[in-house]
Amino acid sequence: MAEGSRRLANGARRIDFATDPSRYRHWKLAVDGEVATLTMDVDEKGGLYEGYDLKLNSYDLGVDIELADAMQRLRFEHPGVKTILLRSGKPRVFCAGANIRMLAGAAHADKVNFCKFTNETRNAIEDASEHSGQKTIAVVTGSCAGGGYELALAADHIMLVDDGSSTVALPELPLLAVLPGTGGLTRVTDKRKVRRDHADVFCTIEEGIKGRRAVEWRLVDEIVPNTRLEAAVKERAAEFATKSDRPAAGEGVRLTPLKRTFTETGVDYSALSVAYDRAGRIATITLRGPDTPPPADAAALTAQGAEFWPLRLARELDDAILDLRTNELEIAVVVFKSAGDPAQVLAYDAFLDANKANWFVREVRLLWKRVLKRVDLTSRSLAAVIEPGSCFAGTLAEIPLACDRSYMLIGQLNGSNQPPAAIALSAMNFGAYPMPNGLSRLASRFLDDDKALAAARARMGDMLGAEAAEELGLVTFAYDDIDWDDEIRIFLEERASFSPDGLTGMEANLRFGGPETMESKIFSRLTAWQNWIFQRPNAVGEEGALRRYGSGQKPAFDMRRV
Amino acid sequence: MAEGSRRLANGARRIDFATDPSRYRHWKLAVDGEVATLTMDVDEKGGLYEGYDLKLNSYDLGVDIELADAMQRLRFEHPGVKTILLRSGKPRVFCAGANIRMLAGAAHADKVNFCKFTNETRNAIEDASEHSGQKTIAVVTGSCAGGGYELALAADHIMLVDDGSSTVALPELPLLAVLPGTGGLTRVTDKRKVRRDHADVFCTIEEGIKGRRAVEWRLVDEIVPNTRLEAAVKERAAEFATKSDRPAAGEGVRLTPLKRTFTETGVDYSALSVAYDRAGRIATITLRGPDTPPPADAAALTAQGAEFWPLRLARELDDAILDLRTNELEIAVVVFKSAGDPAQVLAYDAFLDANKANWFVREVRLLWKRVLKRVDLTSRSLAAVIEPGSCFAGTLAEIPLACDRSYMLIGQLNGSNQPPAAIALSAMNFGAYPMPNGLSRLASRFLDDDKALAAARARMGDMLGAEAAEELGLVTFAYDDIDWDDEIRIFLEERASFSPDGLTGMEANLRFGGPETMESKIFSRLTAWQNWIFQRPNAVGEEGALRRYGSGQKPAFDMRRV
Repeated sequence: MAEGSRRLANGARRIDFATDPSRYRHWKLAVDGEVATLTMDVDEKGGLYEGYDLKLNSYDLGVDIELADAMQRLRFEHPGVKTILLRSGKPRVFCAGANIRMLAGAAHADKVNFCKFTNETRNAIEDASEHSGQKTIAVVTGSCAGGGYELALAADHIMLVDDGSSTVALPELPLLAVLPGTGGLTRVTDKRKVRRDHADVFCTIEEGIKGRRAVEWRLVDEIVPNTRLEAAVKERAAEFATKSDRPAAGEGVRLTPLKRTFTETGVDYSALSVAYDRAGRIATITLRGPDTPPPADAAALTAQGAEFWPLRLARELDDAILDLRTNELEIAVVVFKSAGDPAQVLAYDAFLDANKANWFVREVRLLWKRVLKRVDLTSRSLAAVIEPGSCFAGTLAEIPLACDRSYMLIGQLNGSNQPPAAIALSAMNFGAYPMPNGLSRLASRFLDDDKALAAARARMGDMLGAEAAEELGLVTFAYDDIDWDDEIRIFLEERASFSPDGLTGMEANLRFGGPETMESKIFSRLTAWQNWIFQRPNAVGEEGALRRYGSGQKPAFDMRRV
Repeated sequence: MAEGSRRLANGARRIDFATDPSRYRHWKLAVDGEVATLTMDVDEKGGLYEGYDLKLNSYDLGVDIELADAMQRLRFEHPGVKTILLRSGKPRVFCAGANIRMLAGAAHADKVNFCKFTNETRNAIEDASEHSGQKTIAVVTGSCAGGGYELALAADHIMLVDDGSSTVALPELPLLAVLPGTGGLTRVTDKRKVRRDHADVFCTIEEGIKGRRAVEWRLVDEIVPNTRLEAAVKERAAEFATKSDRPAAGEGVRLTPLKRTFTETGVDYSALSVAYDRAGRIATITLRGPDTPPPADAAALTAQGAEFWPLRLARELDDAILDLRTNELEIAVVVFKSAGDPAQVLAYDAFLDANKANWFVREVRLLWKRVLKRVDLTSRSLAAVIEPGSCFAGTLAEIPLACDRSYMLIGQLNGSNQPPAAIALSAMNFGAYPMPNGLSRLASRFLDDDKALAAARARMGDMLGAEAAEELGLVTFAYDDIDWDDEIRIFLEERASFSPDGLTGMEANLRFGGPETMESKIFSRLTAWQNWIFQRPNAVGEEGALRRYGSGQKPAFDMRRV
């Protein structure tokens, strides 16, 4: 199978990120009081693309879409769940990792998108542990290799059954000449603090490590004899539940299906629309502000459930970004616009701030954090166009701050009597939504410029016109009506003419100034090296290891070290 | 010219990193009291390879080898120099950056090695400023583009002449579809704190930025009218000299030519030898301990000059690593051995520690720091083999700590009466030689394991046998005579069989656990993305931007964003 010639299974035209438990083919979600069990039992014939079987609990993007959905639902629909057990539904194998035939036949962009999404899912598991009181325990029975072990690495605690054959392994390098690129190398050293020379040994042996050495080298947290396994799992689940700050019980918020219509030229959601100009290679995403004021109190909030505007918009934006990333590969620039009343958006922000102790509000804020990070990590040029009628205030002001650049109109458009555009900051812009580098978008923008940050903070709540916003450094360019159309047109045409790869590399550097975190290291150091390797003939060439795996032929390597 | 078909100029067989001012073709070094001027005046016909001219002060590796040598000599030979001026010897151009025809025709490994070395040179400029009191001022006259501006970015202060035409620019992306990969993107955001959206604009315009906007956007520190330039340069040079802690005057230490003999199978230096097993793809570097005790006092040290054993060995190791990296591309593993008296090495360490206020000792220590970082950043598997007769103590113990793994023999070899091997730690292992991530090698090894670090510190000065060293976590494996040869043989054979690219990516991740610094970000995030782009057809393919530059034909891009 040549690189990049895969077809989606069942005649599908797009990859769909929306699902729910009734449609899962690969995971079973069972909730028992404070403990949920997510059982991986991959349907061999349920691959997202044609041309491979998902043997031995190996996975593709479709399997991970279900996992991401399940993790999200556990947060919103099951406020009482404090411990999540990751288990295998298959004998003798926990998870064999990413499906190799899938990878070998995937286009480069699909490999990269697959790794990015699976990385985001694993980060979401860690985010649930750190911020939502949902701790995850991986119960490893059977072989746990490659991406399977990388999934376990996202858990708070790894239990390995001590049955003489169950192992953990990162065999990517010796078997396939690629990296454990879904966080594996980084989590081994930076999360589990495996000594670097032990990690070197571990990552170069195909057969993995079991038993006592796995604990000594910090690869797992404990080994448990088979006979004691269920008792130990129960004990550990209860123990981790006591570390949780989830509400003891209570109703969840059901994540109702997205309201979404695909057309030839875009996608319409309830609070968002996407319009594609495929010839110009531009997608315009318009975010719509709330139609109604925020709920009066927590009870009214609960009654709104998934209709709560900030939740609805966050879910829709998440879906839109994922759809665009995966299904519209030639779009060069995403232009963000907004429509609505900025004062109304600020009122919602005040509600989110005043009720942050409420578990549901906490989850909504955390979802926005994750969705905004998804925007940061999107390999498209991002531009905000701020015009009369827009509502880039507070939480929504994070969007222009996430963009590579922003344009704001001074005054009115010729012939229009809409009042001039305004943007506004709220408390939510000063720490609620950290980027992958751990800083707020404003702090990233004003790296080491505390004066500029303080000046922005001093204007919190003010409606800022284009000139004020430019003066404060909140937008890149402010133009009046005379230059407006030309400046934006020239920018968009020019951007679409540049090398897509060059832009990806440039943006991946300029967006993340300042400190690095484990998360940002995974998306920079590890991912960038993996992407490089995914271009190297030693991995993906006709004679490369990824292509020859399972063929009986040994790979032929160019032995020059680079 | 097809990728990778370049021949070295003048029939040279190897790239030589050793030079001295009498042989410079591209730089002029003039010292006037506290101020040195390094004038770039590239000899068009002096390219390292055949097939291109170094027009407009563009550079190749050969030009940078001279710059690195000059910076090194300024530190050792000119203790009185406190300010270094980087200037152009050509009218209307400061520096056009890396030569594009050179890049377009270079093999991938050569591109990567070129960028790595130039990055190391720029880091050395910053190291001289931070630690040696040699401040650098870039005096930009004419156009300063791409790598030219990246060189200026390494300076403490950038002056731009305000003549209406002199500009700074990073036009790599729009012109060539590659990144400003020699630190440019990272230094713009992380060192100069250019706002990310301004950086986005700056890096996407070919023509660069001049005058007042260059200052407002923090791209340069000041603009100066042509008529006032020389006076302003003089003023600034004096001002920066007052910030220096260099000795007011005094004799320098002349860096005498390396004693070096190339043979068919290796290289011999005075305190080091390199032996190539090209069939096995192994290089063995043997470091030799000192023959004599350390000098009695500072006067005796000065009398030794470049013969001082730690300086001699550091210079030789630096040259050996650079030679191997560049000229022996198929070597998979570097095996480090040592021979000498570990107690003698500790005596030298005690001398380096006791005399650290001495400027010359400070320079020797800083050189070791840089050379050890060069080892860390070498894309070959690194292994230490610690046998009877070795002297991996103190400063030399950094070598096994820099390695991906280490093997130590327990007891004696069958039939030999040499006493068992010992390693030892000194004060120098606890902070004198930070890695690019800012941590000592021991702290990187015991990330978040303060107990292990304290246990190692408690044994400072002790001669540690293999079992003790293994127990303390200082070596990876300790084997006795029965297993010794087999274990090492199997490791070396296996390592040489793996994909070179996979190993490069794996080691680049596992070696640098924990925090990131601007320096480590340059070598991870930026470099890894640049290496990826250097593999992408949009840059390096037949129709790519790098290949078509100057041909009159526009590049043809695959417009899928990845």
